[in-house]
This record gives sequence, structure tokens and C-alpha cells, in this order.
Amino acid sequence: MIRPPAEIGMQLADVDTPALIVDLDAFERNLAAMANNIAAAGVRIRPHAKTHKCAVIARRQMALGAVGVCCQKVSEAQALVQAGVPDVLVSNQVVGSRKIAHLMALSREARVGVCVDDAGNTAEIGKAAAAQGIVIDVLVEIDVGAGRCGVPPGEEALALARQVASTDELRFAGLQAYHGSAQHIRDYAERGRAIDSAASMTRATVESLAREGIECETVAGAGTGTWQFEAASGVYNELQAGSYIFMDVDYATNLDESGAPFTDFEHSLFVYSTVMSRPVRERAVLDAGLKAFATDCGMPRMADFESVAVLKASDEHGVVDLTASNASVGVGDKVRLVPGHCDPTVNLHDWYVCVRGDRVEALWPIVARGCVW
Amino acid sequence: MIRPPAEIGMQLADVDTPALIVDLDAFERNLAAMANNIAAAGVRIRPHAKTHKCAVIARRQMALGAVGVCCQKVSEAQALVQAGVPDVLVSNQVVGSRKIAHLMALSREARVGVCVDDAGNTAEIGKAAAAQGIVIDVLVEIDVGAGRCGVPPGEEALALARQVASTDELRFAGLQAYHGSAQHIRDYAERGRAIDSAASMTRATVESLAREGIECETVAGAGTGTWQFEAASGVYNELQAGSYIFMDVDYATNLDESGAPFTDFEHSLFVYSTVMSRPVRERAVLDAGLKAFATDCGMPRMADFESVAVLKASDEHGVVDLTASNASVGVGDKVRLVPGHCDPTVNLHDWYVCVRGDRVEALWPIVARGCVW
Repeated sequence: MIRPPAEIGMQLADVDTPALIVDLDAFERNLAAMANNIAAAGVRIRPHAKTHKCAVIARRQMALGAVGVCCQKVSEAQALVQAGVPDVLVSNQVVGSRKIAHLMALSREARVGVCVDDAGNTAEIGKAAAAQGIVIDVLVEIDVGAGRCGVPPGEEALALARQVASTDELRFAGLQAYHGSAQHIRDYAERGRAIDSAASMTRATVESLAREGIECETVAGAGTGTWQFEAASGVYNELQAGSYIFMDVDYATNLDESGAPFTDFEHSLFVYSTVMSRPVRERAVLDAGLKAFATDCGMPRMADFESVAVLKASDEHGVVDLTASNASVGVGDKVRLVPGHCDPTVNLHDWYVCVRGDRVEALWPIVARGCVW
Repeated sequence: MIRPPAEIGMQLADVDTPALIVDLDAFERNLAAMANNIAAAGVRIRPHAKTHKCAVIARRQMALGAVGVCCQKVSEAQALVQAGVPDVLVSNQVVGSRKIAHLMALSREARVGVCVDDAGNTAEIGKAAAAQGIVIDVLVEIDVGAGRCGVPPGEEALALARQVASTDELRFAGLQAYHGSAQHIRDYAERGRAIDSAASMTRATVESLAREGIECETVAGAGTGTWQFEAASGVYNELQAGSYIFMDVDYATNLDESGAPFTDFEHSLFVYSTVMSRPVRERAVLDAGLKAFATDCGMPRMADFESVAVLKASDEHGVVDLTASNASVGVGDKVRLVPGHCDPTVNLHDWYVCVRGDRVEALWPIVARGCVW
């Protein structure tokens, strides 16, 4: 693992760049705000660790009441369990004998669950569990509008749930019903309608299963864009929001009930970068590009300057347009960027440099960075 | 470092996914083709290691005649030098006292050069070299059309070159004149005109410096999209192409002289991925998304299927559109994806799984993965 770009006790201005910065005050306010929201709503939270990939953060979330965390990959779950996280749901399909073998081994070290959406894969997981003498929690994933994984709600979902429930080594734990594409619908009412639709499909599936005597202990879903709708739905009981701890440009573009930008949570994650070139008045060049921040949701936003935009990014450079600005920006100056999309940005770094005010208070390893399988 | 997703001797079909695959036969043909081209053109090559971040590949390039490699970051250079690469040019500005200190330390272990485009930064590097009793090679970077770093050619470039030449601890080694944005101009003639323009600005600067008795030992630039133009220019003498070893969807979209897609080099780099869900006939879902391939130049291409496209990617999923296809694609099947952009894709992985035919022949660590500072 790469050495951290800072030392504890250092001033922020002395941190080497590019670095991934966590503003601890803002981060802790986000953690506490979600914990309070969840307690008030009477549901559980199992935050998504694909956002942070960090055992320190997972433990902080659990200390505030989270029942565990989610991961998308077996290797991610492995990294977190090995760093002491006791309860991880792989909120995703696990396909292939090698991955399934690792999942089984992991379930001896911690409470581990997995999602399924295919009869053959379910049978393979059941056989592997039987061979190891393990019983594993299984959620059936249903597609409630995202158009990605998950069986259609209705007869296919019921058939898969019956298969799980009738396999001794699989414990049917409920439904995974995440509506991913609803997270980024900007309009509040429209976002609410998407979740109403998801909740209604989910409720029908839960009720059909109940009529057959198959109970859904867990009905899981929700993200940072929609959690209040799932919390109020009366059907979801375990929320999987992840990005609320950091926020990003994309989530901050969502609108609230009044049509104003979403302010439930604050930006606490920044890519810290140095101006490495100022060749002409109109242009500054940053030492952070495609390898320091993700651009799938657009360019990062300059946190400390009005009317100054990151115009484009190449592999190791970010070009800043100063045409419309009189900002004093010189070679060696350091700036904070708000990532367009937090999850894939985090995955580019090995360390969080955690600052309180201007002082580096902690360095947290991103233990599941790069855990793609 | 994460463990590799394969074992030597394994069949490709058994490699865990997502994995970064190098087709060794195609890769070696690319290496040899460029070495032959360069020898025929009578110039030098110093391939860009920002593409591969791998000491094994750097050594293979040097074994075929490369004079050394380029990097964009001090930490990248450090990782390669520590893995035995003897000659690295940081083809970029190095700004900040911590980075400069590391550059100086590195120059005791290998031949190391650096680029400058600012008088203050040049003075700081000079002072650091003096304090350490080191003499370091410096190229003055000029902006020949890319609109990124580099001083404008002309008086500013001459002034900076004089400053370098008159500083005892800095050895003026020549000019860095890379035209980045020309690499992706699709039309051959238009691409050639962009480099004609860059070469003409560069030549004028070289000649002005010569009139003052300042010789440019090295005139560096070029990439995979334009190398033949710089090679033929009569002014560039050291080419910095990187992507030719792997190719990607973006470079394969460039056109040659006849208007046909560019075929000088072959695709040798693939992201290997498993179909993890096939919930409906029209859709398959891959276990590779934004954390397994870069999308800044668009979606990856399915290497083994006609008329099947990766429609969209989320963090850990790639959604494949099978609407117009009768391809037989089931859960557990593995597919090869050609990345849209090779450099930032490589940076997401820790290992190259190198295959010859269907057998894993080697595992090469991506030692400079994540070296962003």
C-alpha cells in the first residue's frame, strides 16, 4: 500500500497532493444526522461501504446504531471483515465457484449475507454451503425499476424465494429491492413517485410470500437520494444509503421539497490539489486529473472559489478556466475539489487524510480500495 | 497490495473477474512494431510509463531500444526506480517542497529528469539540487497547441531556458513539446497539420536557443496518435508514445491515411468480466463497472461479440444491451472488454494477468498503481 500523503498533526496546507481529505466535523455531522433520522423513522440502517471502503468508518457507523454494512464484492467484504467489521451483506450477486468459496470462508469469520437473482446460482451457493457445513443468509433481489440486476417481482421472485426457503443451508432473509436509478432524479416529487412504485411492487411480493408462510425479516433498499421515501414506506425496514457520509456534486444537485438543492447532508469529502502550472492568465492547471477523481458524473467543483470551474481533466491534470475570474491563483497554491461522484473517487486513493479545522487528526486506510472481484 | 485474480498456468476461463488481461502475443507484436518504426525513423523512444505503471514492461521496452521511460508523477518514478528502472523522465512539472525533496532523493538512485514551465519553480528545484549537491536534467516545457502546461514558445521559453542553463545544478537538456490534444484528432491529414504546427513552433524555439549558444540535446513529445509525424519532423528526436503497447477504443477510432481505422497496433489489453445476472432476455449485467474500467472516453467495447454493446456502467456493474442480438450469454459466462481509455483503466488494477493463447503465463504487478502525487 502506498504511504499516506500526510502526517498526523500536520497543517492541511502542508499535505501533499493529490490527497483525499475528510472534513471530520462535517463528516461527523452527517453520521449523526442520519443516525437521528433513522431512529426517528423506526427502521434500521446498514450503510453501504462501497462508498467508503474503510473499516474505521464502518465501525463508526455501527457505533451509532447501524446493524452492519453492505458491500458489492466478496473481496470488499473480506477486506472489511479482516479489519474487524462483524456483519456484512454482499448486496449483490456472487457468481463463480472461486468467489463463492471465498464467501463461504468469510462466513466463518463474521455474519455474512448475499443476494441472488438466478436459480442456478442459488443452487451453487446452496451446494457450497452444504459442503462446508455452513448456513448463509440470502436475500432475493427484485428489480423494482432500476433495470439492472434482480428478478421481476411476481411469480419469478416467489419461485426463487421458495427455492431459497426450501434449501437447508440457505436462510431466506428477505428481499433486496434497491431502486438505483431513482437516486438521481432531481425533482423531489418525481423521486418520491419512483419509490412509491418500487415500494408497491415490493409490498405485493412481501404479501404474496407471507400468504405462503414465507416471512421477509429484511426488506432492504434505499440510497442517499431517496432514503426518506423508503423509511416512510411502511415496507422497507433496512436502508442502505452510503453517500450521505460524504456527499458529492451529483447528490447535491438533487432538489428538496421546496425545489431548493438538497441540504440534508454536507460535503465532507474533497480532493486536495496543487496548482502546478499557470502558463497564461486564463488558465491554471491542477495536479489532479482522471486518476485522482472520477468524472462519470461530471467535473469536480472548486470548493473555495466562486465562478471558477474545472473545465476538463486529462489523466494527471485538471484544467481550470479563469477567464471570468480575478481569483488570485498561483503555482503552488492548493485548492479543494468536491468530487462529481464520491464512490469511484474514493476507489482511486489509499488513504483518507482526516482534518479537523486545519490540522490533520487521523489517517484512515481505504482497506477495500481496488477490491473489484 | 491485493492478491492477483489468477495463478500462473491457469486457463483464461478460470481467471477470477474483473481482471486486467494482457494478450502477450499482441502486446509483443506492438512492442516490436514500435521498436522497428523508431529504428527506421532514426529517432529515440522513451515510452510513457503512465500507461502501464509497470517495471516489467518498462524493462521490456528498454530491452528493445528505449532510452528510458517517462512518468507524470514523482511517486510513479519512485515506484519504477525502486523496481529497477534506471532512467526516468518526469515529463511534467514537480511543484512543492515535499515532491522536490523526493525527486532529489530519487536522482541518487537513477538517472532522473524533470520539466519546468515557471521561473519560481525552476529556482526552487535549483536550490534543492544545490542543497543536495546534485545536478539534475531539466527540459523546458512549451505549449505547442495542447492548451495545458508549458510556457508559450518564443521569448518566455527562451527566458526560462536561459535561467535553467545559467543555474549550475540544473542541466538544460532541451524542450518538452507534447501536443496532447492532437492525439485524438480522427482525420489523418488534420492530425498531421496539428503536428506540423507544433513542430514549427518547436523548431523556431530550438533555432533561437541555438543562436544564443544553448543546444537542445533532447526535443521530446509525441504520442500513439501522432508519433509518425513527430518522427518525420526533423526536429523531434525523442518520442514519448505510451498507449501503443495496449491500444484502446479511443485510439482505435483514429483514422489512417486511407480513412480506415488506425491499425498500426493491436488491442492487447482487456478487462475480463463475468455475466453476473441475466434477469431478462434483453439484458445481461457484467460484474465490471466504473471501478474496473475508465469511461472518460466512453464505454468499453465487447471484444468477442458483434452488435452487442455495453450500454451503461454504474460503480460495480456494466449493463449489456442484447435487444438486437441472439448471442447466447448466460450467468457465469466470461467476456473480454476493450477499455475506452487504457491509462486510467490500468490505474484501477493491481495486477496484469498475462495470457499466451488461453494459458496464464505471467502475473505482473502494477507497481505505480495509485501513485498520484
